[in-house]
Amino acid sequence: MGDLEIRPAVAADVPAVVAMLADDPLGALRESPDDLTPYLAALERLAADPNQHLVVAERDGRVVGTLQLTIIPGLSRKGATRSVIEGVRVHADERGSGLGTRFIEWAVERSRSEGCQLVQLTSDATRTDAHRFYERLGFTASHVGFKLQL
Amino acid sequence: MGDLEIRPAVAADVPAVVAMLADDPLGALRESPDDLTPYLAALERLAADPNQHLVVAERDGRVVGTLQLTIIPGLSRKGATRSVIEGVRVHADERGSGLGTRFIEWAVERSRSEGCQLVQLTSDATRTDAHRFYERLGFTASHVGFKLQL
Repeated sequence: MGDLEIRPAVAADVPAVVAMLADDPLGALRESPDDLTPYLAALERLAADPNQHLVVAERDGRVVGTLQLTIIPGLSRKGATRSVIEGVRVHADERGSGLGTRFIEWAVERSRSEGCQLVQLTSDATRTDAHRFYERLGFTASHVGFKLQL
Repeated sequence: MGDLEIRPAVAADVPAVVAMLADDPLGALRESPDDLTPYLAALERLAADPNQHLVVAERDGRVVGTLQLTIIPGLSRKGATRSVIEGVRVHADERGSGLGTRFIEWAVERSRSEGCQLVQLTSDATRTDAHRFYERLGFTASHVGFKLQL
């Protein structure tokens, strides 16, 4: 396999990113790969925000992963800045290639360089494989994640 | 009790906000109310970011609660924007006054007016009273929250 590059997502990546978001037991129920309009609008909003880092992993000219890192300043923990990882997806062909680990390590390194003291993420309670993966990378499952659909 | 006002936090609120962050079994271990410098720096950073809403609740001229709402655009869920609630604190004198409910309702309403389709938050696994509170307000404990200290 060729080298892996992690870089900011651009509009041309959106079809591949949305295909990965939809290629998932949960994502299949909530994505619309046939209509990219709302995704392109969201990308513009992300690109304009210096605290947002939507990236893709590219190998041999193909987009094989995506991840969103958000930098959140705050008062608690002595004015600590934290980062939040969302929307992690690795292409089915790349599973077991170590890309997931490389990706999270990239997010942790980037968080450090942005001055964060804490990295956090939530994972659906049904994704038990993902939970073991995050624990192997040093994360602690210390919290309960609540969601409210509007 | 007088009327409650929920408004953006300003520098003059920082001592009261930090006192509330510290007046908590977990917060007591990680805050430094004797040195407000890092909190004031964090407030400046928050105030400059249109996606950040650090608010306080004021009653009879006293700050009695604080909460941070962050608006996060994203690609997943058809380009959905979500909000994240962090750092919710209610002054000990106000517990049972309904302020917690008013506060979360404010955050949900504000999220709606910012175009969010989802509100999320994490709560330490030991805060079981808080979990029941969020479930009563319609939140679902569907996720596991992972954290990594840097």
